[in-house]
Amino acid sequence: MNITLEQAEKVIAAAKKKAVDIDTKMNICVVDGGANQVAFARMDGAWLGSADIALKKAKTARFFDMPSGEIGKLSQPGESLYNIEHSNGGLISFPGGVLLKNNKGEIIGAVGVSGSSVENDHSVATAGANAL
Amino acid sequence: MNITLEQAEKVIAAAKKKAVDIDTKMNICVVDGGANQVAFARMDGAWLGSADIALKKAKTARFFDMPSGEIGKLSQPGESLYNIEHSNGGLISFPGGVLLKNNKGEIIGAVGVSGSSVENDHSVATAGANAL
Amino acid sequence: MNITLEQAEKVIAAAKKKAVDIDTKMNICVVDGGANQVAFARMDGAWLGSADIALKKAKTARFFDMPSGEIGKLSQPGESLYNIEHSNGGLISFPGGVLLKNNKGEIIGAVGVSGSSVENDHSVATAGANAL
Amino acid sequence: MNITLEQAEKVIAAAKKKAVDIDTKMNICVVDGGANQVAFARMDGAWLGSADIALKKAKTARFFDMPSGEIGKLSQPGESLYNIEHSNGGLISFPGGVLLKNNKGEIIGAVGVSGSSVENDHSVATAGANAL
Repeated sequence: MNITLEQAEKVIAAAKKKAVDIDTKMNICVVDGGANQVAFARMDGAWLGSADIALKKAKTARFFDMPSGEIGKLSQPGESLYNIEHSNGGLISFPGGVLLKNNKGEIIGAVGVSGSSVENDHSVATAGANAL
Repeated sequence: MNITLEQAEKVIAAAKKKAVDIDTKMNICVVDGGANQVAFARMDGAWLGSADIALKKAKTARFFDMPSGEIGKLSQPGESLYNIEHSNGGLISFPGGVLLKNNKGEIIGAVGVSGSSVENDHSVATAGANAL
Repeated sequence: MNITLEQAEKVIAAAKKKAVDIDTKMNICVVDGGANQVAFARMDGAWLGSADIALKKAKTARFFDMPSGEIGKLSQPGESLYNIEHSNGGLISFPGGVLLKNNKGEIIGAVGVSGSSVENDHSVATAGANAL
Repeated sequence: MNITLEQAEKVIAAAKKKAVDIDTKMNICVVDGGANQVAFARMDGAWLGSADIALKKAKTARFFDMPSGEIGKLSQPGESLYNIEHSNGGLISFPGGVLLKNNKGEIIGAVGVSGSSVENDHSVATAGANAL
């Protein structure tokens, strides 16, 4: 199973709505099961540098099948995955990348959000993921 | 002036409609006046490799403020811009990248389309641009 | 549908056998439906530089759902896809990349072969693909 | 002396067996004495992002002729090789990369494993190395 564009657009719409609700401006990226970009939106006035971060968060979540922030806990100095960010052309290992699953619980892609605090990023990504 | 996300989504919707009309599956990318990605959509079943090409076509159009295919005429062996594709992290210089202008004729971004023949790519990109 | 490691190993074994039959030394790479590497083998004495080429041929075939050499016909000077090789981190557009399909005809990945003439590369890749 | 493909395949087979025994799904990569990839396998369902990590662990081990995790001890903040991961296109400096030696004790390559805890990765890599 792989995500469709219609599903990806639903994820982005839900994430945008959440971003507006909490008064933030986000970059939102959806990748498929192969970690390839399916859909992207940068809200007006959102940080330019967050576009690449949103993409890398989505990829990071799918690369290791967990929220991007979980990787970050393990990649701190002294922890087991220290500096894993140097792999795969650059990971982003703080919160904001969340897996996307279908109603059977199968992974069909991931969403990455960047533009505010990591708590807000994660919350907007989760709102997107819950739209499926 | 810069493109808004709402305008970018209008461009993508018009391009998608045109792509369906001519029975193609496209990757469609919109960049703003700074050549930074604003919105992207990969239609179901469209070529994976065309995502990067759609982005590079849009950037190429905005980098030189002309349709991407115009650059390609000048980058042939013996021509004045031979191998310009090596610049800017990789250009795509065949048709499918088109400038986006507001109703005063000011450049506000560009759209890049990839997934079929270059004629179809250009035609879908133009349909997108005409939505503004 | 996506290729399994067992299928990928069958492809590599058949390609290696063909390579020996025609007295060549090959790099053989299999990617899945998302263009991510599944299996790889470099035969003893095969060119070092062909490892990356084998990977890029496999990716190129999957990126555009056609044999890599078909892209090369269109990317010549004056042709419609001139210099497409600058996309996707570098394409290889000469023969040796071939799609892999299951018995329903669905694309499940691609194989790329490099190490000899492009005719030999293509023939070894095809032998690999026929093992499925 | 350099590793042969037959030896590399023996290493991968032993590593796969160990991975199954401890109920993990691994990416396994073997490089030769020149730190160039010889063989690779991604087990079904293993993390996509671990392919590049397995390669980088193997390279890291051979680049400095020690287990990848030893580098990681020296690359912590305040230590002598802080941020060495920025070299060579990206190192991975946590456990899972192990040298491969022939029966005379000469280095002939390295194996890198990624897909589970670093303890499991290292244990699977060691099982692979012991097959020689």
